[in-house]
Amino acid sequence: MNYEEIIGKIKPIDKDSMEKTQKKLDNLTKPPGSLGRLEELAKEIAGMKETSNPSISKKAIFTFAGDHGITDEGVSAYPKTVTAQMVYNFVRGGAAINVLSKAIGAELIVADLGVAEDIFSDRVIIKKVGYGTNNFCKGPAMTRENAIKSINYGIEIFNQFGPYDIIGIGEMGIGNTTPSSAIASVFTDAPVEDVTGRGTGVGDEAYKNKVRIIKKSIELNKPDKNDPIDVLSKIGGYEIGGLVGVVLAAAMKRTPVVIDGFISTSAALIASKMNSNVSGYIIPSHNSVEIGHIKMLEQMKKKPLFELDMRLGEGTGAVIGISICEMSLKLLNEMATFDDAGVSKKN
Amino acid sequence: MNYEEIIGKIKPIDKDSMEKTQKKLDNLTKPPGSLGRLEELAKEIAGMKETSNPSISKKAIFTFAGDHGITDEGVSAYPKTVTAQMVYNFVRGGAAINVLSKAIGAELIVADLGVAEDIFSDRVIIKKVGYGTNNFCKGPAMTRENAIKSINYGIEIFNQFGPYDIIGIGEMGIGNTTPSSAIASVFTDAPVEDVTGRGTGVGDEAYKNKVRIIKKSIELNKPDKNDPIDVLSKIGGYEIGGLVGVVLAAAMKRTPVVIDGFISTSAALIASKMNSNVSGYIIPSHNSVEIGHIKMLEQMKKKPLFELDMRLGEGTGAVIGISICEMSLKLLNEMATFDDAGVSKKN
Repeated sequence: MNYEEIIGKIKPIDKDSMEKTQKKLDNLTKPPGSLGRLEELAKEIAGMKETSNPSISKKAIFTFAGDHGITDEGVSAYPKTVTAQMVYNFVRGGAAINVLSKAIGAELIVADLGVAEDIFSDRVIIKKVGYGTNNFCKGPAMTRENAIKSINYGIEIFNQFGPYDIIGIGEMGIGNTTPSSAIASVFTDAPVEDVTGRGTGVGDEAYKNKVRIIKKSIELNKPDKNDPIDVLSKIGGYEIGGLVGVVLAAAMKRTPVVIDGFISTSAALIASKMNSNVSGYIIPSHNSVEIGHIKMLEQMKKKPLFELDMRLGEGTGAVIGISICEMSLKLLNEMATFDDAGVSKKN
Repeated sequence: MNYEEIIGKIKPIDKDSMEKTQKKLDNLTKPPGSLGRLEELAKEIAGMKETSNPSISKKAIFTFAGDHGITDEGVSAYPKTVTAQMVYNFVRGGAAINVLSKAIGAELIVADLGVAEDIFSDRVIIKKVGYGTNNFCKGPAMTRENAIKSINYGIEIFNQFGPYDIIGIGEMGIGNTTPSSAIASVFTDAPVEDVTGRGTGVGDEAYKNKVRIIKKSIELNKPDKNDPIDVLSKIGGYEIGGLVGVVLAAAMKRTPVVIDGFISTSAALIASKMNSNVSGYIIPSHNSVEIGHIKMLEQMKKKPLFELDMRLGEGTGAVIGISICEMSLKLLNEMATFDDAGVSKKN
């Protein structure tokens, strides 16, 4: 199924299941609402899954990799080769996302959507749209056809696995805070300075350069905020496009998507601009150190669950988010009711 | 061992282990510091445990119950009998803290430090100092002897179990946000209004009454902020005193203590006033809805890990905090280094 068919099939979350879940929550042995956002999460997941008995058992993290031509402009503190090196690190199980997904018993699905070199591993899904995007400071990052291809690849990958009760999304791509800042600026109308951070560690001069490059790229390419695929193709990235596809496919299958940091949030934002029902299936995790992150979350009317000063990506924050979602559903499903427990209600 | 001996034996956290851990963290395959507070947590726990290889396997939640004479003044929306009812709910496994501690594989240790009625269950540790405290609006909540007894009971309970690699603390006691607000006001010098919330759900009139009662109680009893036991005895509670003992005993054994909400934080604050080394062993979890919570955390120089609008107590937030601590140590212990993985460092 391609992205256009999927977009037509994404339904709003189910209010009826949410109401039933609220009633269940209010009858559990605790003051109403006293578990705060854990109760809200349980209710929202019920709405996504269209049941007042949602539970989580199968879970996965989709971590997509891609390279970025914009690194030619010196926007990253790390050499481009690190993208491929980290993909091999994922394969060997040594990265942060390996440790964390294992900790919560989630499958880790690593895919190459556009790493600049060939990846030789049967543990990586190869759906390469290109060997890194073009330098979008000099023209579009990719053709419109390739933007669509990256989204459709993401959909294919999602549908190849699963079904899952919940998923997390993450990424690896040296330089990919730069397209994400550009995407954030275009969709939120915020000045580039207000949505651009230092990524994984550039200094003052390099930061000023990064802002200048993003401004120049937006002026040159004139991405149309009313056409999300235009934005993706002109100032996006292949791994970002792949994640857009995952979010769309998950939303169609009523699967909650826990987003991670700045880059995966930019993918979720693009997806939510393609069908406004999408945001109902998105669960925020952390508010990262990247200053533009919160602005994109606000665009989707999402409030982060926690703030741990993380800025790694890979899906690391999403894992913690999933563990909080799991706890919220266990509370919903396993707590005693006032009647069961013989506990008095409020005076 | 009584509290005075314990207090003399609480050592500062170990800087050397923290430095070694920092070096380990900086050599893992991620940009330095990019896991944010997860890295800080791993380092702090290393300092507490005096090792650069800390790990968590045995864990427990100490949930202490007690009643409060101050409920005679109408400060709570729930009848006092709910304290005992909830203790039985803990015994049967139906409360939120049962569900959450089971979810992370933590032992749940429930103790009666001062419930207003006899608790008949061999699954509750009975260390009753009294049948509820006195109404501290009319005189001290308890004698100085009983305040000390509650602390020593907490120490006994901690030492009876374990050892644990990490613990969480929580409580159940109808009316116990009132003593906690009073404790917060005395130690932080904040006006009563600024540290008093609505507890588990009182209305406008009852809220005004609660503030008035706390002010009156502080004026009447004149607790001495330089004498933490004086504060505990005059405006505290038995379960709070018990938790003070747990915190002290844990700190002496270099065991990290994850605190929960408003009430358990007031116990941690009292303990930290008895020996300033104590705060080194305290790990915050959430910032609760109770407005005085953040002020007490600030007094101990602690920044909450997350904010989920919780206000239940029992140790529920501490469980989520422990799960985050566990993830931080898994990252420290299981991630590959740059050399292992052949990943390039920063340019």
